[in-house]
Amino acid sequence: MSEEREISVNLKDGSSYTICVAKGALATIGEKVAALKPCRTAMIVSDETVGPVYATLVKKRLEEAGYEVYDALVPSGETSKSVEIASELWQELAQRQLCRDDLLVAVGGGVVGDLAGFVAATYMRGIDFVQVPTTLLAMVDASIGGKTGVDLPCGKNLVGSFHQPIYTCADTRCLRTLTDEDWANGFGEIAKSSVVCSERSFYEWLRDHAEDLCAHDDQALEEVVARTAEFKAKVVEQDATESSGIRECLNYGHTLAHAIEAAAGYGEIGHGRAVAEGMRFAARLAVQVLETDTDFVAKQDALLDSLGLEELAWTCNPDRLLKLMKGDKKARGGAIRFVLPHDFTSWELVEVDDDLLMVHLSAWCEAKEKLVEAG
Amino acid sequence: MSEEREISVNLKDGSSYTICVAKGALATIGEKVAALKPCRTAMIVSDETVGPVYATLVKKRLEEAGYEVYDALVPSGETSKSVEIASELWQELAQRQLCRDDLLVAVGGGVVGDLAGFVAATYMRGIDFVQVPTTLLAMVDASIGGKTGVDLPCGKNLVGSFHQPIYTCADTRCLRTLTDEDWANGFGEIAKSSVVCSERSFYEWLRDHAEDLCAHDDQALEEVVARTAEFKAKVVEQDATESSGIRECLNYGHTLAHAIEAAAGYGEIGHGRAVAEGMRFAARLAVQVLETDTDFVAKQDALLDSLGLEELAWTCNPDRLLKLMKGDKKARGGAIRFVLPHDFTSWELVEVDDDLLMVHLSAWCEAKEKLVEAG
Repeated sequence: MSEEREISVNLKDGSSYTICVAKGALATIGEKVAALKPCRTAMIVSDETVGPVYATLVKKRLEEAGYEVYDALVPSGETSKSVEIASELWQELAQRQLCRDDLLVAVGGGVVGDLAGFVAATYMRGIDFVQVPTTLLAMVDASIGGKTGVDLPCGKNLVGSFHQPIYTCADTRCLRTLTDEDWANGFGEIAKSSVVCSERSFYEWLRDHAEDLCAHDDQALEEVVARTAEFKAKVVEQDATESSGIRECLNYGHTLAHAIEAAAGYGEIGHGRAVAEGMRFAARLAVQVLETDTDFVAKQDALLDSLGLEELAWTCNPDRLLKLMKGDKKARGGAIRFVLPHDFTSWELVEVDDDLLMVHLSAWCEAKEKLVEAG
Repeated sequence: MSEEREISVNLKDGSSYTICVAKGALATIGEKVAALKPCRTAMIVSDETVGPVYATLVKKRLEEAGYEVYDALVPSGETSKSVEIASELWQELAQRQLCRDDLLVAVGGGVVGDLAGFVAATYMRGIDFVQVPTTLLAMVDASIGGKTGVDLPCGKNLVGSFHQPIYTCADTRCLRTLTDEDWANGFGEIAKSSVVCSERSFYEWLRDHAEDLCAHDDQALEEVVARTAEFKAKVVEQDATESSGIRECLNYGHTLAHAIEAAAGYGEIGHGRAVAEGMRFAARLAVQVLETDTDFVAKQDALLDSLGLEELAWTCNPDRLLKLMKGDKKARGGAIRFVLPHDFTSWELVEVDDDLLMVHLSAWCEAKEKLVEAG
């Protein structure tokens, strides 16, 4: 195992936990968890893709540390974030007689973490859980912040809880099995974080190491996971339940991204690419609304390009995008709010009225159309 | 409306809310809630028994206060505390486009409060809710403490959250429609509270007013709801998430009660009568284990008798009761724990080994058998 980086997340309610980042970190998960939680039984929740590889390894380590370990595999993909699958897991926990002092371990990407975290948050009114994120996106974003939940047929993440893990183990060795789309999803959130992070050194580091990251260099990956996780942890520390506005910065690029993903049909355009596109759009909007320097826009474009997050060659009707933004739960009841950057490290939450937004959306759709035709 | 009693519940996380107790308190619920929560939309959840009466009244008051109000009625009875019904309510909230700033109002007994509270705790990771308990049991027990949840096929309350209401309105006028069983359920928890409450004056007041209560005297009812709610609120203030042992006293009488209810088949023997029987049993166990004075046992028996909670004429195999106690989630992994009284106001959590417990259970079953034969 490479040297571990430990990020401490200190929540306002007095609780805290550690995110461990290292290549090979899973080797010590048994002893780490046992030191935190001397319980008898653990249930691992994973999916059918990563379970046979990583859940099996985690199970072995926990058993060596003295746990009785059960595991449950759910189908891979977003459809597992459902009340029905949560219900099966609750029943599995009950049938295995896990009690309030026992442990749930989520091994997988964001879907598994959100689902298993929600099940842990609500089984017997809350049992402890450990996150083992296996995708880049989960390591830098989904596993941090305590947001857990499942989807309803009529909308994503409509049912859930805030529930923090007691330990998160990000083993960058798990990244070896990622698809190109998985990498793009991670890079999208990393790029976003580097722009809104209050320390400019994050952006500069990312700009200087984009090539290493695209080559999946071990050291660069560990560094970027640690930097991004630490950034998000700091934000979450200040606002664990999304009750102040501090967490808003995490939505940079997401207003348009959600609309693009919905318009294209979920899964058609990856989240990371949609976020990157949303960042390009928001930066241009900021030039008009906040008089942000066009130099910032160019730098951000270059950063996204260097991470392989090129402009989307996809378009749709601007009215449809506006309608989808209006339907987004964060936007209901008024003008649509955007996180708009002044520059790197400095942003503002701005309400943008529909007319102005339509001008920008129309221009965007037109530009996209040309890109599609050229494509 | 009679003079309101307001009980303030101050939780350790800094939040607080008010329980309002009065005959006719529902008359002002609209203005009270509007002062707390200037939102646009509220969803009332009630059941098919009380909904047509009380939910209709609450709806009217909220509409007068400026809310847009939807309502959802679930079937009456424990079977509505299911994941399936919760899922229907989540979808109803989503279809009505309620957002995180909106409000859910639970109008009914413990089943409705637990179910609707859980839905509120988890819809969009938690929206505010108001409790309008309409049974005596819900007013003095179920609506206080933030425990929300639903049942699984294999066990009660296995899925849930801790989620405190922002306001509770206990209108004793709602008690007029209660059944004898409903009264017994309330009196059981009231009697329990009076025994473990740290102030002896509660027991003495209850002893002196049992007759008035059985006659459903308005003033006595308001007083007992306020006293019992205040007692439970004080306990909950010290331990909102059941993480210290302070809340254990609330389980007085419940160890045997749960086993009796399960052995008889849920719904066959009311919760209040089962709790009263559990108190009688625990008091006798305390005489042996803690050398509790037999005078206490006699006084407690007299109190229960005076509240119409006579000894149960029902028996079963003692082995079965022991097995059910062992299966109770609170008892797993060792000797069974009982809240045992030294006297009024003073209790202790005691592990009772199986052999001693079987001696007492056998004696209890034998005594019950005679009662059944005599009956």
